[in-house]
Amino acid sequence: MTDPRIGIIDERLKGVNEIVAVSSGKGGVGKSLIASTLALTLARRHCKVGLFDLDFTSPTTHVILGVKGLRPREEKGIIPPQVHGLKYMSIVYYSGEYASPLRGAEVSNALIELLAITRWNNLDFLIIDMPPGISDATLDIIRLVKRINFLIVTTPSRLAFETVRKLIDLLSELRVSIIGVIENMKMKKSGFVQQQVEARGLTFWGEIPFDAELEEAIGDVNKLSATQFGKKLGEIEKLKV
Amino acid sequence: MTDPRIGIIDERLKGVNEIVAVSSGKGGVGKSLIASTLALTLARRHCKVGLFDLDFTSPTTHVILGVKGLRPREEKGIIPPQVHGLKYMSIVYYSGEYASPLRGAEVSNALIELLAITRWNNLDFLIIDMPPGISDATLDIIRLVKRINFLIVTTPSRLAFETVRKLIDLLSELRVSIIGVIENMKMKKSGFVQQQVEARGLTFWGEIPFDAELEEAIGDVNKLSATQFGKKLGEIEKLKV
Repeated sequence: MTDPRIGIIDERLKGVNEIVAVSSGKGGVGKSLIASTLALTLARRHCKVGLFDLDFTSPTTHVILGVKGLRPREEKGIIPPQVHGLKYMSIVYYSGEYASPLRGAEVSNALIELLAITRWNNLDFLIIDMPPGISDATLDIIRLVKRINFLIVTTPSRLAFETVRKLIDLLSELRVSIIGVIENMKMKKSGFVQQQVEARGLTFWGEIPFDAELEEAIGDVNKLSATQFGKKLGEIEKLKV
Repeated sequence: MTDPRIGIIDERLKGVNEIVAVSSGKGGVGKSLIASTLALTLARRHCKVGLFDLDFTSPTTHVILGVKGLRPREEKGIIPPQVHGLKYMSIVYYSGEYASPLRGAEVSNALIELLAITRWNNLDFLIIDMPPGISDATLDIIRLVKRINFLIVTTPSRLAFETVRKLIDLLSELRVSIIGVIENMKMKKSGFVQQQVEARGLTFWGEIPFDAELEEAIGDVNKLSATQFGKKLGEIEKLKV
């Protein structure tokens, strides 16, 4: 029998114009920083934006946004709190500060629950911070969120791209929309990633230089937007709204 | 009913003196590079070493070691091939170059199978490259490999340590042995990680500076050992054998 909550998910997301799932082959490539900064950038451009942290393996957007002790309001579902001009919802509201070694079925259940209860209402963009890589959770979200578009983050590292390549191949096979690839933490000139991306018929959104100052800006959204990283991200042509 | 293969695992590992599971809170912190270089370093010091890549989310040790087209030999189980003085076994032998979106039960099954069939015989050290973070797979491996010791890799980043902290808390709760913590990709002076580690009664193994040249050494074990990264790892006091 199908879980009755699954039917509600489409209804919950019908006021959302575009769903962007920020994803990576593996962790540590800046996925959560890009998802958060992307959401903040679009909000500053007067778009209605939601940020949804579904990275249950390592939810960190609340640390990046400098948000503490926030709790969503319950009202015929859950209303995500407004933070820095965003509607913000995170799996961390439920898992808290503790280790949450959710077993497979629990992860699946938590994802369905969060997608089914969160009332986003009207949004121009819903940015999802995805779990890294290709996991049950990734496949669950693809199945549950029908209008999902992937924005893939990689670094120039061969080790990172090794896994991104597999993610791209899988998404292509599943006919899931990939709107672009961002190359983050760029240090040396090299066209490898762009070449690989374009050879697969995908759009290369551009590169963001490695920014040693970024760490200092974590937890302060104004500093974050003012970093080299924040500026370069804001200059991406595809983000012009 | 218990899977009959589980009983064999202890038998398969009984000739192994020390089992070191190199683990991280999230990906991208250099876990696989540390696992591989650690194994190579110990092998050069005339230890009998096995390297076992169980990071099914993103197996990369074969890329680091520059190994291609290797297949283990079947003989009353599986004999891991000898590579650069190591016995080397990877989940990639089975998942190949393709995306392997193994669903939960399949991951569990693959881990049991690999642990039950691989014949390590006598080893001083078996280094396991673990799946990142706290997942079903991590919990499975803890359950299956009774004499496991964790060596945890983090970076100075608050975002990386946020997740490492949860991993440490969970392992402590489960009374799993943690032999130490390595701080990788260090860029600025800061005692934050060491402090946090020692406050938890754990051993801080030391820090390894960020090495921009490391990427060039991937796939070439001689270059790898000669990098700043390789040298600093080799100098860790706890590794003196």
